[in-house]
Amino acid sequence: MQHNLQDTISLLARTPAALNALLRDLSETWTVRNEGEKTWSAFDILGHLIHGERTDWMPRARMILQFGEAKTFEPFDRWGQERESKGKSLAQLLDEFACLRSENLNELRGLNLRPEDLERRGKHPALGVVTLSELLATWAAHDLTHLHQISRVMAHQYREAVGPWSAYLGVLQCAGHSSP
Amino acid sequence: MQHNLQDTISLLARTPAALNALLRDLSETWTVRNEGEKTWSAFDILGHLIHGERTDWMPRARMILQFGEAKTFEPFDRWGQERESKGKSLAQLLDEFACLRSENLNELRGLNLRPEDLERRGKHPALGVVTLSELLATWAAHDLTHLHQISRVMAHQYREAVGPWSAYLGVLQCAGHSSP
Repeated sequence: MQHNLQDTISLLARTPAALNALLRDLSETWTVRNEGEKTWSAFDILGHLIHGERTDWMPRARMILQFGEAKTFEPFDRWGQERESKGKSLAQLLDEFACLRSENLNELRGLNLRPEDLERRGKHPALGVVTLSELLATWAAHDLTHLHQISRVMAHQYREAVGPWSAYLGVLQCAGHSSP
Repeated sequence: MQHNLQDTISLLARTPAALNALLRDLSETWTVRNEGEKTWSAFDILGHLIHGERTDWMPRARMILQFGEAKTFEPFDRWGQERESKGKSLAQLLDEFACLRSENLNELRGLNLRPEDLERRGKHPALGVVTLSELLATWAAHDLTHLHQISRVMAHQYREAVGPWSAYLGVLQCAGHSSP
């Protein structure tokens, strides 16, 4: 399927409200528990999404437009959310994510990207040459990968409580598929 | 972890709003495409959730309270959503799901279940003896299994568009784990 920038923006615009509706004021049973050592809770994942808004998506888009392949992206710090989340409440993280996402989408819309801009290339430190189109599609798919993860981490908390139904619940069979 | 009825209700109460924030007015690229033959789109999954509100969770809870193990649950029709969804828009399904869920939770709260009620047993046609506690925990985990599925089905639409980033997106490695 061809990448469609309007589809990408419309999904990106909805994720903060969806997470807000799901998580705000929900008990900590669901929001701060993880899947075991070195895994993330919904709270941690929200910090990761915030860190991406600050350091990943739009900074990389700007770099492609400004430098093309001449300058390699900064590697993304997968544990950078610890700094973002420290001492904050879940409600604060939800507000912060919504605010940063909205600012970033305003900037993205303001670029008025043409189809030929989407074909411009940049350099990823591990993946090599990538296009602006791929970067923006990944931004949307990255939201979905973490919505997928949040639902799995939350379901994990009821692994025992569901009794024999665990056999029917696909999410409990999911071991996660993220790169380390 | 012990099953906590308040945690279950608070999650169940949020799912319709979360799906509404994610899906309402989103382009059909995201909402009506599936993962291939005999798989479900976000639209189909919403029909399945509605079908569960009508025929699965509260009807089974009532049956446990009324008949215990003496009467076996009706088998759940995993393709029953076709009837629920026919000719409807996604917006209608979102409204219907929110309305049914709200009615069902009102009824559940009205039962004023005590801890000993949660231990009452019923009979599942395939799983055998189950408790009311397990049924209600499964209702919540079932929401999460389908949120997990919706995010996967949507991400699938961008499988090509993300280019080499597909290697980093866990959701694209997920083949689904649901029982047939």
